[in-house]
Amino acid sequence: MSTPVRLRPGDTIGILGGGQLGRMMALAGASLGLKSHIFCPDPDSPAFEVADAYTVAPYEDVAALDVFASQCQAITYEFENVPGPTAAHLDARCPVRPGVRALEVSQDRMWEKEFLRGAGVDIADFARIDSDGDLEAALAAFDGQGVLKTRRFGYDGKGQVMIRQASDARGALATLKHAPAVLERLIGFEREVSVIVSRDVDGNVSAYDLAENVHEHHILKTSTVPASVSGETAERARRMAEQIAASLDYVGVMGVEMFLCGSGADERLLVNEIAPRVHNSGHWTQDACLTSQFEQHMRAVAGWQLGSTERHSDVVMENLIGDECERWPQILAEPNARLHLYGKAEARPGRKMGHVNRITSKRG
Amino acid sequence: MSTPVRLRPGDTIGILGGGQLGRMMALAGASLGLKSHIFCPDPDSPAFEVADAYTVAPYEDVAALDVFASQCQAITYEFENVPGPTAAHLDARCPVRPGVRALEVSQDRMWEKEFLRGAGVDIADFARIDSDGDLEAALAAFDGQGVLKTRRFGYDGKGQVMIRQASDARGALATLKHAPAVLERLIGFEREVSVIVSRDVDGNVSAYDLAENVHEHHILKTSTVPASVSGETAERARRMAEQIAASLDYVGVMGVEMFLCGSGADERLLVNEIAPRVHNSGHWTQDACLTSQFEQHMRAVAGWQLGSTERHSDVVMENLIGDECERWPQILAEPNARLHLYGKAEARPGRKMGHVNRITSKRG
Repeated sequence: MSTPVRLRPGDTIGILGGGQLGRMMALAGASLGLKSHIFCPDPDSPAFEVADAYTVAPYEDVAALDVFASQCQAITYEFENVPGPTAAHLDARCPVRPGVRALEVSQDRMWEKEFLRGAGVDIADFARIDSDGDLEAALAAFDGQGVLKTRRFGYDGKGQVMIRQASDARGALATLKHAPAVLERLIGFEREVSVIVSRDVDGNVSAYDLAENVHEHHILKTSTVPASVSGETAERARRMAEQIAASLDYVGVMGVEMFLCGSGADERLLVNEIAPRVHNSGHWTQDACLTSQFEQHMRAVAGWQLGSTERHSDVVMENLIGDECERWPQILAEPNARLHLYGKAEARPGRKMGHVNRITSKRG
Repeated sequence: MSTPVRLRPGDTIGILGGGQLGRMMALAGASLGLKSHIFCPDPDSPAFEVADAYTVAPYEDVAALDVFASQCQAITYEFENVPGPTAAHLDARCPVRPGVRALEVSQDRMWEKEFLRGAGVDIADFARIDSDGDLEAALAAFDGQGVLKTRRFGYDGKGQVMIRQASDARGALATLKHAPAVLERLIGFEREVSVIVSRDVDGNVSAYDLAENVHEHHILKTSTVPASVSGETAERARRMAEQIAASLDYVGVMGVEMFLCGSGADERLLVNEIAPRVHNSGHWTQDACLTSQFEQHMRAVAGWQLGSTERHSDVVMENLIGDECERWPQILAEPNARLHLYGKAEARPGRKMGHVNRITSKRG
């Protein structure tokens, strides 16, 4: 193994994607004296406003990628659907962190599940679905119920069909335009939790406290920390996340979503999916921890030591979706709230416009 | 009184000066969805890297100022020596906050002292010095000792002569190139403390906890919060700072430096000077409070409500001066430290390159 590239203050981290995650990464990097160069095809990217440099070009524009790579000392991304050839092309010129393998695994639900099973963490039963015959067989094995999901490009509930009875199955694959899919066994999960885990170039791993997440219309609405789970469950969640990061030889921050099934002594965690990037359910770290997930990610990408993931306060993060951002004056008036707005011009329905962290003293 | 201008997220705050203070204001504004436009004659200004727009021009370039004002919804500054005509010219086009009066008062030590005395806060005895005769008379009145300071453009100990005996007085005015000066009575002060106070456009005032400051070579080295003073003294300091802000009809964050003389029941505070801007001795707020002084300032300048000045942790801020910034890897390794670097290329002696906030749980 070669010596990993380590940046110095004043160096530039390239970021693929110019949305709110890229923006908050750039802001966190700037606090550490790191410059950011945002690469995004959208000329109105909110991250451009806070970056030292930006490039507007398609992810397939090889000439633009070459210039970009030549101006950065390390490259990261804010979304997992970075085209594989783009990542590989860049990685040959400048270290791409978390890395090409993390992208590959998380871009395909089937590979992701196979990887997770191989990493030794618990996941829901699943089956590969390429045809109606596959679907029929899998449903028979899963008690007639399941969630059918496209293998690629699904997010915020898009590319999914819930199958609760035989009639739901008819036409399900057609709804997904016969894209390669996966059927997941339907689990009576109680709650959704997530862990933000970080790993540095030397293999040190550190996870933040478990967050309990509530979704509305398939979009994250709140993350509450601490989650109401037993200490053992919280510790198990952290260990699973650390195990996943280590198995991927990961560098940076990763979001690991889990389902919490059963209760009491039967409390059980199943990993749902991983996101090889900073994660919406980790925004609470900005105001409840000394090191935010964004700073942590930039440290790791720079080849630096991780910061402490300790939490100094209890917190509830609430996403501001669509015109909810118009509540900003009321939020500014709340003494324990910290407002974060993303600088997006248009508040379209379902669009993440900002979030608020509400902080209280740590219990116990 | 006319209705004050209030900004909306997406609006632009202009910042005169592109150093670390402007940079940290821009970063704090970005978290709230505010854009920044930096105006600075120095083409290598560290604030440019994180701002949406910047202008490189002298502060006397009226055409550049006009374009700048037309692109901003409010304007602020990071240093108190903004030329008066520049501030007045801009203020006629776009609200300048904290305001022209705060600049005038803080640019001239003599006016500042007269203002402070008028505001009803305690300050050391002082005398206006325009000639050797003035100096002789004042020294006679102040027991033969004092600090002679130029009225304008002094900072970090520059423009000062300490007079402890008659021989020190000879040539003192010549050392200051016969600039108009002020003699301050030498006080046996024990310690230096400061308060960061904020005031919004509606007149609401809120001060942060008192910080205890240690200087080295006339440059701030550390700020410790809480300061080791009685609760009464801390409260009196806060009240004095709030009184000063109100007297100036101030909008924004202001640093108020004070001397702490005597001890126990004789503990006494004398205001030393005010800085009409975010202040180095307030950097601790970034990691020990929900609202940093930078966010607080941007809120006030935007015409928004102030945030809570409550402190969730104890903290010691240490400035990284000159090549001390080379200790960044060690600082990153400290679990309770948060590093801030300013993105300055060259670590010249005496230059502020960054700072570190070391956080511990709040006592009591």
